Amino acid sequence: MADRRTITGFSNPLVKFLRSLRDKKHRRREGKFLAEGLRLLTDARLAGILPEMLVMATGRDSHPLLDELEQAVAAAGGDVIEMDEAVLAKVTGKDNPQAVAGVFAEFDTSLASLDRSAAPIWLVAQAMRDPGNLGTMLRTGDAVCAGGLILIDDCADPFSVEAVRASMGAVFTQRIARASWEEFIGWLRQGEGQLVAASLRDSTDYRKAPYRAPCFLMVGNESQGLPLECEQACDLRVTIPMLGRADSLNAAIAGAVLAYEALAALRG
Amino acid sequence: MADRRTITGFSNPLVKFLRSLRDKKHRRREGKFLAEGLRLLTDARLAGILPEMLVMATGRDSHPLLDELEQAVAAAGGDVIEMDEAVLAKVTGKDNPQAVAGVFAEFDTSLASLDRSAAPIWLVAQAMRDPGNLGTMLRTGDAVCAGGLILIDDCADPFSVEAVRASMGAVFTQRIARASWEEFIGWLRQGEGQLVAASLRDSTDYRKAPYRAPCFLMVGNESQGLPLECEQACDLRVTIPMLGRADSLNAAIAGAVLAYEALAALRG
Repeated sequence: MADRRTITGFSNPLVKFLRSLRDKKHRRREGKFLAEGLRLLTDARLAGILPEMLVMATGRDSHPLLDELEQAVAAAGGDVIEMDEAVLAKVTGKDNPQAVAGVFAEFDTSLASLDRSAAPIWLVAQAMRDPGNLGTMLRTGDAVCAGGLILIDDCADPFSVEAVRASMGAVFTQRIARASWEEFIGWLRQGEGQLVAASLRDSTDYRKAPYRAPCFLMVGNESQGLPLECEQACDLRVTIPMLGRADSLNAAIAGAVLAYEALAALRG
Repeated sequence: MADRRTITGFSNPLVKFLRSLRDKKHRRREGKFLAEGLRLLTDARLAGILPEMLVMATGRDSHPLLDELEQAVAAAGGDVIEMDEAVLAKVTGKDNPQAVAGVFAEFDTSLASLDRSAAPIWLVAQAMRDPGNLGTMLRTGDAVCAGGLILIDDCADPFSVEAVRASMGAVFTQRIARASWEEFIGWLRQGEGQLVAASLRDSTDYRKAPYRAPCFLMVGNESQGLPLECEQACDLRVTIPMLGRADSLNAAIAGAVLAYEALAALRG
C-alpha cells in the first residue's frame, strides 16, 4: 500500500498549487500540467506515462482501473494523495468534477525531439487560439496515425485542461512540438517533408493531390487563416470544396478532412 | 433615418430581456435568439434574414455594412436601438464584446418544414450536447451544400449564442429541425432517404460505400455515441479508420469526414 496524505482544507498549499496549474503562466513556470478523470489517466498509463502526483477523492467509488493506476504511481515513486471531494472539485473545476486527477511533467516540445520518419502524417497548427481545437487536432492525429502536432507561433497551450480534455488522451500518444515559423521551416527543410495547406491560391483539388510522406498538413488561425508567407512556403496547396456561402471551415475540421484524405492517398 | 432609442442604464428592462436570451429557457419561451457581431448579422442579411431588433453601441466605429444593416432593419419595420458600450458589453458577454447585436425570431424547426429533395446531403445529430459542435456541424453543412441539420432527441440548443457563433452564419442558411428519434425515423421512411452512420458493426469502408442522395449522415452523442437502435435503423453503416489508441473521433469531426466523402461520391 502506498503512503498517503489526506488533504481536507481548501487553503492547503497543495490545493493552491493544483489550482494554479489551470493557469498557463504557472504551468510554464512549473513545467507541469493537470489531467483529470480516470479515463484520461488510464490512457496515459497505457501509453507508458504516469503522473508525478495522483490526487483522489476520499469518497470515490472503487474501480479496478483506479487501483491499477494507484499501484503504478506508487511503484514509480510518485505521490498518492487523498482529498475531500469538495476540495478536489475545487481543483478540477466545478462544471465537471472528477474523482481523480494527476499532475504530469510537461514533455519535451522541441522540434529536435521529433523523428519525422516515424510517421507518414504530421499535423501543423499555426497560431491556433482555441484549446478545444488543439485537443481535437491531437485526437484526430491519433486516429490517422499521425506522429504528432507541431504548434507554430502563438498557439493556445496544448497542456491546458481544455486541450488535454478535448484530446481524449491523445496528448499522451501524439508528439507535441512548439516553434516559431522561422524555426519550423528551417527544421523542415533540413530533411524530407512535404508541406501542405488548404488554400484558394494556385491550388489542386484536395482529392487528386500528390500527397507524399512525411506529409506535414498545416492549418491556420481560426479567424485569420494562414499568413501568405506560410501558404507560399507550401510544397502543395490544395482546395477543399466550399459550396455554400462561407469561405472557410472550422480549423480543426479542415485539418481532419485533409488528414483523412492524405491518409487514404498514402495508404494507396 | 430610423427612429432610435438610446439606452444608458444596466437595469433597463430591454437590457434584462437581451441578457435573458443567453438562457435556453427564456429563448424557448420568447421564441427569439441573439446573434452578435457585424459579420454574423451581415451573413443573415445576405441570406434574407433580418433581426427584429438591432442593438448598436453608441461609440461604435462607422462601417458601410453597418449602415446597410441599419437601413434594412428600419425599412422592414424593425427596432433600431443604441446602447452605451458598457451596457452592450454586458449583453453580449464580456469575453468578446461586439459593437452590434440582433434579436431574431426562431425559425420553424419542424420536420414537416423540410424539403428533403432540396439537397443531396443532410446532417443529423443525435443527443449532441456541445453547442460548439452543433455550430460547427452547421458550418460544415453549409460548405458541403447540405440542406440542413436535424437534431434528434436531447441536443444542445442551436440558437444558443455559442452555437450561433460557431456556425459562422450557417445558422441562417442551413435548415434546422428538431425531433425525437421516433418522429425522425417515421418521417424519414415516408420518402426517399438513405440513413448513414459511422459504426464498428457490420460496416463498409467509408471510402467505398454506396452513398445515395438524399443522404442523411448521422452522428451521435459526444461520449455515448449512437444508441444501438439508431445504428440498426441505418441503411448504410460505414467505418472510418481509427489507427491509433482511441476508438472515436470528435463528433463534429466524424460528421465532416463523412460529409466530404459523401459529397465526393455523390458528385461523381
